[in-house]
Amino acid sequence: METNHPVKPEELSQQHPADIADTLQRLPVEEGLTLLQAMPAEPAGHALVELEYDYRAEVVASLAPQELVRLVQPLEHHETADLIAELEGRSREQIIQRLPDDVALPVRTLLDYPEDSAGGIMSDRFVTLSMDESVERSQERLRNSETFLSDDISYLYVVDAKKALKGIVSFRDLVFAAPGSKVSAIMRKQVTCLRLWDDQEEISRQFAHYHYLGLPVLDDQDRVVGVVRSSDVLEIAREEATEDMQLMVGLSGEERVLTSWKKSLPRRLPWLLVNLATAFAAAAVVGMYEGVIAQWTALAVFLPIIAGQGGNAGMQTLTVIIRDMALGEISPGDGRRALVKELILGIANGLAIGLVVGAVSYLWKGSALLGWIVFAAMVLNQLAAGLAGVLIPFTLKRLRVDPALASSIFLTTITDVAGFFFFLSLAALAMRWALPQ
Amino acid sequence: METNHPVKPEELSQQHPADIADTLQRLPVEEGLTLLQAMPAEPAGHALVELEYDYRAEVVASLAPQELVRLVQPLEHHETADLIAELEGRSREQIIQRLPDDVALPVRTLLDYPEDSAGGIMSDRFVTLSMDESVERSQERLRNSETFLSDDISYLYVVDAKKALKGIVSFRDLVFAAPGSKVSAIMRKQVTCLRLWDDQEEISRQFAHYHYLGLPVLDDQDRVVGVVRSSDVLEIAREEATEDMQLMVGLSGEERVLTSWKKSLPRRLPWLLVNLATAFAAAAVVGMYEGVIAQWTALAVFLPIIAGQGGNAGMQTLTVIIRDMALGEISPGDGRRALVKELILGIANGLAIGLVVGAVSYLWKGSALLGWIVFAAMVLNQLAAGLAGVLIPFTLKRLRVDPALASSIFLTTITDVAGFFFFLSLAALAMRWALPQ
Repeated sequence: METNHPVKPEELSQQHPADIADTLQRLPVEEGLTLLQAMPAEPAGHALVELEYDYRAEVVASLAPQELVRLVQPLEHHETADLIAELEGRSREQIIQRLPDDVALPVRTLLDYPEDSAGGIMSDRFVTLSMDESVERSQERLRNSETFLSDDISYLYVVDAKKALKGIVSFRDLVFAAPGSKVSAIMRKQVTCLRLWDDQEEISRQFAHYHYLGLPVLDDQDRVVGVVRSSDVLEIAREEATEDMQLMVGLSGEERVLTSWKKSLPRRLPWLLVNLATAFAAAAVVGMYEGVIAQWTALAVFLPIIAGQGGNAGMQTLTVIIRDMALGEISPGDGRRALVKELILGIANGLAIGLVVGAVSYLWKGSALLGWIVFAAMVLNQLAAGLAGVLIPFTLKRLRVDPALASSIFLTTITDVAGFFFFLSLAALAMRWALPQ
Repeated sequence: METNHPVKPEELSQQHPADIADTLQRLPVEEGLTLLQAMPAEPAGHALVELEYDYRAEVVASLAPQELVRLVQPLEHHETADLIAELEGRSREQIIQRLPDDVALPVRTLLDYPEDSAGGIMSDRFVTLSMDESVERSQERLRNSETFLSDDISYLYVVDAKKALKGIVSFRDLVFAAPGSKVSAIMRKQVTCLRLWDDQEEISRQFAHYHYLGLPVLDDQDRVVGVVRSSDVLEIAREEATEDMQLMVGLSGEERVLTSWKKSLPRRLPWLLVNLATAFAAAAVVGMYEGVIAQWTALAVFLPIIAGQGGNAGMQTLTVIIRDMALGEISPGDGRRALVKELILGIANGLAIGLVVGAVSYLWKGSALLGWIVFAAMVLNQLAAGLAGVLIPFTLKRLRVDPALASSIFLTTITDVAGFFFFLSLAALAMRWALPQ
């Protein structure tokens, strides 16, 4: 047993907050709470930020207001806002009122932006320079405000008298510049910016696409109000990109191995019931041909093969498309290209698999007719799988639904229904025309 | 039609290299080549680096040696090495020999490290300071070497006489330090480092976990030989994390919507044939009970429901685990926790779905016995799905295979085989004991 000996708060405090969080979220919430309360605010507050979503929500809801206020004290405003955002309206107000005024005000502002917008993920800690100041004077001023600055600030933002962004200067630029030159002379004027309401998924795509280190966030009047850093986006990018894997099979997108079964059940069961409804559609197709199966039982043996091959091929197509959509690498016109490619692949795969499965069926059951039926059904089914694999995500996207949402459930419905229909209707036709009654 | 008017190289050159690459890889390779050759080396070289894997390999292989040498000229050494790595031994040597000596040597060194190691992804462009130098003297020296420095360098590495790493200084530190102080006095001594052979997946986990901006890479003698930046890791993190979605369903992990069908077919078809082999296992189970189905055809109608529910529930379990493994959030001991959780969920989901599907079967086919058989088979199948969803990825991991590899294919085999066996053997038993012959 790994967790036999109790965790000591003094030892835990020495670790990196991300590692402290890892340890805590493997313990029952009550134990986690006790440990957090026994640690100094500095590591405990940062560890709280690093906890996984469900566990963190429980911890934040269970902490006494004065204890939560203690823990958020070493945090940046946007981290505090993220934690408080998990509370209901009244408890939220309780906490904010206990915060010092110079924290409560910015936290309130940050809470107004949607969680998944630039405003919701940005830090409001950044440094501005005035255009007309000299490099020397700027350096001096910075030296005196050192406490305000953290390690991960790479750029300084140059603003005019109305606080509107005019350019950026890196610390590197400051080091290299002649001390007497004006800030406006060394700043770079072409600056990529984010707007407060930009979507975080789009932001993470931009960071990955253009390899940004950090971008300023502007309000309606072009004033810098925050900054988004690549280190913050990295975690979002990993989570967003993998969320789709979960959505495809009917999961919340936020479930972890450590999520308790009580939380999982109400999230998973509804999608399993949706799947059940769609499975009945496939069953109904088989039901339509019960008479045929009654006369030719060998057909039943091939149902799992038809369903399995259609499902797997369709999932291949679907996954390629969902992944490219998640990575933001789909442009207008790519849908048609994808369709053409997948139809060709459907025919090619269908012919190859159909030949194998047709030959095996013939050898197994001794009926050449069955072999041909299986062959033809497989080609048609592979075509349907490619078609469904392309059309489902593009249709969901056009309906402004996440293209991954339950897509594997819809896909297997189509491949099952189409596959069984092709196979059993061909068999029914064959029995009527080719077999002696 | 979006691509009706030809793309002009002069206009293309003005865009960001990542956007140029986006345009190029939607054109046939010959057109892409012509455009690259018509553009100045500066944007064209950087665009070449940004092309997606398959397209880039084709372009690099088709470029004349002198043209490739022209295009890599504005690139960093590690980018040049990445491009050359795609060529065969002889063509590779041809290019390297045409490079200037001060480029050929470092490129050769970088080519020696595995592509997915710290050595394979690091940049060899970084700046060192001496411990005994003053801050003022360091700044002066840096000012004179400006051409060597790029924008995205945040840290300077402090080394001793043997070039071993002793600490780091940020540009910010340099700006704030008193000009007369020694570098050794302002440097931070606790530095997280990477080693040349560290795995890139592990590196991207560390960057996401600890929010690093950049980390130095050391050789055996603790000398700094390169630096890995968070902006480089971001793209790796997104690709690694989503690769698993592809591996699960039998894709290469590198397929894109734009990948041609000729490249896709030989990658997808083998896994479809593996799936076919496993589908025959499920078919064989049905075959064992052909006699039972012949007497009770209604059973065939329920096969798709059994298979569909087992497959979907198993995929939910599998996906939660694969995702946590991909994000590096599984610790020893989590396997047992996952097993307990999934078995509880299997029973709970099984009872809920079993009741619904049992009741519907009774109402549809008018047989209470059939209802009970479907109910019992569903509970057992959901348990088997949970069990398989946990055991498959942990077993693959223990076998040192990627836990995602073809896992959905193995999973549906188990849920199909187990589900059909439970359902049909229960039906066979019931027919023998409960139904009047």
